[in-house]
Amino acid sequence: MKQTAVACSNIAFIKFFGKKDEMLRIPMNSSISMNLKNATSTTTVEFSEEVHTDSINMTDREKERIVTHLDRIRKIAKISLKAKVVTENNFPKGSGIASSASGFAALTVAATKALDLNLSEKELGMLSRVASGSACRSIPTGFVKWEKGTKNDDSYAFSLYPPSYWNLKDAVVIVDRNQKPISTSKAHGLSCTSPFLSKRFEGMDEKIKECEGALAKKDFERLGELIESEALNMHAVMMTAHPSIFYFRPGSISVMETVWKLRKEGIQAYFTLDAGPTVHVIYEGKEEDRILPVLKKLESAKEIIVSEVGEGAKIISDHLF
Amino acid sequence: MKQTAVACSNIAFIKFFGKKDEMLRIPMNSSISMNLKNATSTTTVEFSEEVHTDSINMTDREKERIVTHLDRIRKIAKISLKAKVVTENNFPKGSGIASSASGFAALTVAATKALDLNLSEKELGMLSRVASGSACRSIPTGFVKWEKGTKNDDSYAFSLYPPSYWNLKDAVVIVDRNQKPISTSKAHGLSCTSPFLSKRFEGMDEKIKECEGALAKKDFERLGELIESEALNMHAVMMTAHPSIFYFRPGSISVMETVWKLRKEGIQAYFTLDAGPTVHVIYEGKEEDRILPVLKKLESAKEIIVSEVGEGAKIISDHLF
Repeated sequence: MKQTAVACSNIAFIKFFGKKDEMLRIPMNSSISMNLKNATSTTTVEFSEEVHTDSINMTDREKERIVTHLDRIRKIAKISLKAKVVTENNFPKGSGIASSASGFAALTVAATKALDLNLSEKELGMLSRVASGSACRSIPTGFVKWEKGTKNDDSYAFSLYPPSYWNLKDAVVIVDRNQKPISTSKAHGLSCTSPFLSKRFEGMDEKIKECEGALAKKDFERLGELIESEALNMHAVMMTAHPSIFYFRPGSISVMETVWKLRKEGIQAYFTLDAGPTVHVIYEGKEEDRILPVLKKLESAKEIIVSEVGEGAKIISDHLF
Repeated sequence: MKQTAVACSNIAFIKFFGKKDEMLRIPMNSSISMNLKNATSTTTVEFSEEVHTDSINMTDREKERIVTHLDRIRKIAKISLKAKVVTENNFPKGSGIASSASGFAALTVAATKALDLNLSEKELGMLSRVASGSACRSIPTGFVKWEKGTKNDDSYAFSLYPPSYWNLKDAVVIVDRNQKPISTSKAHGLSCTSPFLSKRFEGMDEKIKECEGALAKKDFERLGELIESEALNMHAVMMTAHPSIFYFRPGSISVMETVWKLRKEGIQAYFTLDAGPTVHVIYEGKEEDRILPVLKKLESAKEIIVSEVGEGAKIISDHLF
């Protein structure tokens, strides 16, 4: 009744942004991401009769989301046992790395295994998705596509390529550790007030195709251009919402300008940003020595977490309690 | 045959962005601006048989635009005299204040007067417009609307209110003195590659109506919200063009964040940006003491030029040569 799982967070090349079904987290568009090997959540879940009441370092909202998710899993297993959950991230809070993706992927894998539910990767993904959309992309290995689908059982994630397929790296440049002013969920909701959201959706199928094509050909320039224009597209939608959701901080711009400068010098680096000020700089591993020292010199870079492509969520034997 | 004119630059609340007719500079949408009393061009024009060949402090492109405009005026006057032109701006280059607006307005007024052409304000505006779109808004006084029209003789500017109508101010916060990477004209052209441009145009008539309404009621909060969301809308279009046109610099964001912070403290200030990194902070004169000292303290503010609402272009008696 006690299991521990580890799951990577992921960074989306094509973003999950906007929901067709709020409750089931069916997205408006398919998305593509890579898992981040060096940004993981480890979660131990134990089911028993014992009641646990401590919630350390957790907001009410976080606690509620976890409890709701455990209830989903209890329902599948047809049990009503209490659960003890301990989870640890190997990356700091407020880093702009999606801890809800890695966290809910690890929780789903650990909790279902603890209850001896034998779920397939597809089922684990769909279950994670309902807790936190992008968590479904942290279940399969390497480069992952989340097929948007239309309902619960056809909106799921699968691996396009394993980590060994392409040595891409993500230098996560943290420029601001403060809690971001508007949560990702709230940004999703407000985005419908932007005059540009519908136009964004119109272009998404084409973008997904192009991204798959660039991955298939290992065409980094094409992939990079796509990643960057996709991030700017999402931020353009957010900043034209009412009220405006504006995540760029001065430091974000410094990093973005540095990436553009690197490219002018012939060094292939591209950036993406999720709903926050952190800039993810994506490059091929072989270019690291020409890129990382430049980023490290930036005054605005409070911390840099470098990650290769990571594996899917899995059970491990070392428990956290 | 020698006349001198002075004209203010202007800052647009609703922007001129995108042309229906490239040559005649017929805009895709109407625009509304206020003249900037403290940002003027003074231009002396003398027509004679004498040939002048010096072009001091002028790029080839600038010279060509001036020569082309003088040819237009010669054609109207049916003369082929040579012209000597000296022009001075009372604001620095690269400040993010549109010198082409004030410069071409002053040139048009001086040159046509020097040739004894008796043009109406409407005709002077239309003539200036062909040289530089937003120059037409620098001909009439105070708060000005440029009615988009559909052809040369119905796309013109007129005064909505004189400067005395409302004591609004513009603190032009210069954060970067370098030549901007992409000219305004080029940005206009590239904007059609943004997926959002058509959506932008769809909303413009409504925005113009709202802006006129806010001006009529002197509703500063409504006007400010509109000004700010309009600027973000234009920049969202530019940043999603291919290639991306990204004008925000780290210092721009600092100023924008300061404006948002002021509003959280109940101080009504709003920003707008033209196609460049300079941030124009718009406020009511009575709030100046609560706003200007805060802006002056910003490390990113290289210089601040404060301006009240200015008058229209006019002939003066002091010549520059």
